[in-house]
Amino acid sequence: MTGVAEERQARAVLARVAEPGDPAMFAAVSAHGAPAILAGLRGGDACVGSDPGSSRRVAGYLSRLPAALAEDPHAEADRCGVRLVCPGDPEWPTQLDQLAASEGSGPARVPPLALWVHGGDLRAAAVRSISVIGARAATGYGEQVAADLAAGLAAAGWTVVSGAAYGVDAAAHRGALAVGGTTVAVLPCGVDVRYPRSHARLIDRIAAEGTLVSELPPGRAVTRSRLLQRNRLVAALSRGTVVVEAAVRSGTASTAGHAAALHRPVMAVPGPVTSALSVGCHELLRHGRAVLVTDAGDVLDVVGDLGADAAAGRRGPERPADGLTPRDLRVLDALPVRQGVGVTRLARTAGLGLDEVRAGLGVLLAAGAAERHGEGYRLAAALRSSS
Amino acid sequence: MTGVAEERQARAVLARVAEPGDPAMFAAVSAHGAPAILAGLRGGDACVGSDPGSSRRVAGYLSRLPAALAEDPHAEADRCGVRLVCPGDPEWPTQLDQLAASEGSGPARVPPLALWVHGGDLRAAAVRSISVIGARAATGYGEQVAADLAAGLAAAGWTVVSGAAYGVDAAAHRGALAVGGTTVAVLPCGVDVRYPRSHARLIDRIAAEGTLVSELPPGRAVTRSRLLQRNRLVAALSRGTVVVEAAVRSGTASTAGHAAALHRPVMAVPGPVTSALSVGCHELLRHGRAVLVTDAGDVLDVVGDLGADAAAGRRGPERPADGLTPRDLRVLDALPVRQGVGVTRLARTAGLGLDEVRAGLGVLLAAGAAERHGEGYRLAAALRSSS
Repeated sequence: MTGVAEERQARAVLARVAEPGDPAMFAAVSAHGAPAILAGLRGGDACVGSDPGSSRRVAGYLSRLPAALAEDPHAEADRCGVRLVCPGDPEWPTQLDQLAASEGSGPARVPPLALWVHGGDLRAAAVRSISVIGARAATGYGEQVAADLAAGLAAAGWTVVSGAAYGVDAAAHRGALAVGGTTVAVLPCGVDVRYPRSHARLIDRIAAEGTLVSELPPGRAVTRSRLLQRNRLVAALSRGTVVVEAAVRSGTASTAGHAAALHRPVMAVPGPVTSALSVGCHELLRHGRAVLVTDAGDVLDVVGDLGADAAAGRRGPERPADGLTPRDLRVLDALPVRQGVGVTRLARTAGLGLDEVRAGLGVLLAAGAAERHGEGYRLAAALRSSS
Repeated sequence: MTGVAEERQARAVLARVAEPGDPAMFAAVSAHGAPAILAGLRGGDACVGSDPGSSRRVAGYLSRLPAALAEDPHAEADRCGVRLVCPGDPEWPTQLDQLAASEGSGPARVPPLALWVHGGDLRAAAVRSISVIGARAATGYGEQVAADLAAGLAAAGWTVVSGAAYGVDAAAHRGALAVGGTTVAVLPCGVDVRYPRSHARLIDRIAAEGTLVSELPPGRAVTRSRLLQRNRLVAALSRGTVVVEAAVRSGTASTAGHAAALHRPVMAVPGPVTSALSVGCHELLRHGRAVLVTDAGDVLDVVGDLGADAAAGRRGPERPADGLTPRDLRVLDALPVRQGVGVTRLARTAGLGLDEVRAGLGVLLAAGAAERHGEGYRLAAALRSSS
């Protein structure tokens, strides 16, 4: 087994013994690598923190270890159509790593050990994404605004990230799907679990047309702590967070707080001052913790738009490079203007591996900088016309 | 005739020959005094500006001069129960003088030559006042919010200033009256004119329980320009302006602009993003030109509250002096703690004239620092308990 495969397999096991947002586990894995921590646990060795609570914590890990080791991740992934995505994988959304550097401390600041993904490429979907969040007990107004906003963002080529919960979340996913857009649901349970149960069809549809993601292994149920930890991933996956309706001091406010700690824009939609479900939004706006937005255009004004820069080409052909990684830039430079070419040829031209080209293409397609042509890929129309 | 009486009488005539917000007339009166300008006009002399348009302007004044001179201001005032208030009078709201120093230029920056007032003491009413303005075509939501906001402000001892127009204005006046509060209507016509006509009963009630004010002499009708000029007085009379509902680029926005030019706080109430009548408010908020408020408490947080400082005395007896003029401070110091005393004795104690004491008392009563006791006045209860 290669080092990478070993690391992935160990992370999959450790994600089964630790809960999401476990700072000690994340610190230990970061310092020593997942295989060393797993080996230590197997040998009954602590090595996950040296604070007074560490022995109790390790006892908790050990109680889950036999079952975690008994699961065969490959068989399970095949069974439910789910793939494991780890840091370093082409599909890993690197923006999650910023959680470790965000303001404050505690579980909220801990990147996931691994992700389980079902559906479309997560990194490609999340590169230009906005989270739309809000109250589960949303009003008709809140649901309408969330759906309109999400449809507008999706129609502009942005991915809508939310949590598949009742109310604003579901309306946001549905708004994006309604215009054939991309949407990502971050789940507080295994991606094969349907929670809430009455959203089973919606979540199935997101799996088919969008992407489901969770830091919990398949089969895991929802807990209160997992719901809270999920919020940090919603904020960390997206470039900005829009709050549509929120009661005062709600879970929604916690997601907005994560976004702020990550220095990502927080936006809020106002509503009637007579509505208890707009109080949270008005509080955010009143204290300057959010920018007022009323539609998708307002949101894109705030968040800025790599895609518009890249796709519209209004400011000349040097703009598309903005915000791209060196890898993505090499793929961009390798793209032909006329006849689409396949991944193998792109890899040769760019001097990159096949996986790297596939990941880079995902980013460029999502950003509107590349397009499919015949059996291959080429520079997007807007960029061709300006070059 | 004393110089003061002559100045007042000349201003009353000049306010009849010039339109509200006439920069040349205001500049000439400020430089030479009203009697000199009036004498110049009577002699057919220009002396109101030396720019190319001045002769046309003077011709306009002269065409109105005979009728203006024929009116007997005293008989007229007796007839309709209206009094003339000029700069230097105890009832003159000196905050209007700040119009001359506000940002920008043009008619909007011109203080009135004189005011005609009907009802309660204008200076006392306006010293702690908030203007509540908004769309004439307000929705039920806007009218409800305006009325609730005004009632809350009035119940907290603040005067609600508005323009007696349809929609938000009327709802604001009614909200203040409903809780027995003080309200000031700034009219775009003579204070004896009932405009809009269907608000005749409301305006009558404001005259009886609040104050009507206009810079137009009695009998003058509404014009478009007078409506616009009225907005600057609404903003200039009050400590802050709250916009409840406004379409984009509306007259309401102009009043908010006047307030901003005067460095007075502008506040806006959000509403449903689906409502065209909240677009103006959301624009103000989105661009940081207004602070979001949802109720009277939010407004008082923004505007601050001399009254609360003075009346609550939470921070010790030295606070009530904050924001008072030297004259008002002398009246405050002269107020007895126990047995109320009359104006004559207060004047002797304070070393001030009777008119000065009356004006100072108006301010202190409005600020909650003085109260009536028996036939006279004494320090307010909250200040007594903390001294």
